[in-house]
Amino acid sequence: MSEPLRFRVRILRKPEIADPEGATTARALRDLGYDVVEVRFGREILVELPPGDADEAEAAVHEMCERLLANPIIEDYDVERL
Amino acid sequence: MSEPLRFRVRILRKPEIADPEGATTARALRDLGYDVVEVRFGREILVELPPGDADEAEAAVHEMCERLLANPIIEDYDVERL
Repeated sequence: MSEPLRFRVRILRKPEIADPEGATTARALRDLGYDVVEVRFGREILVELPPGDADEAEAAVHEMCERLLANPIIEDYDVERL
Repeated sequence: MSEPLRFRVRILRKPEIADPEGATTARALRDLGYDVVEVRFGREILVELPPGDADEAEAAVHEMCERLLANPIIEDYDVERL
């Protein structure tokens, strides 16, 4: 395979961790007249790896999340192959 | 319908706009020994609206993006109903 391998990493604070950006944004949207229940902010990280074994690449991306991209103490993440 | 309406907004810099967070993270991953082609950072915003008409709600979320959540000059966004 000569296609590069692309993954989407989605990182969200765990539900029990406060999200001040989201809360502030929800307030701002209400001030603009929108009826909003909740806003939560997360990050999306697109990681492109060179062509190779897709399963090994996905395992590497999980490892990158644990070591560098996410903070597993306060964040949940998931990895999706694109 | 009494289900709240949930939307995922994904916001990414346009491809031609530099992404210094992504570039720095790619370098850090390479320093850790990973063979990475590219890393791009984006934001994910989960917006929950009260129960109601789903099409109207989706239109409102698009409007929120234009008015507050995204910067359409340098960012692309998409809205997905969850």
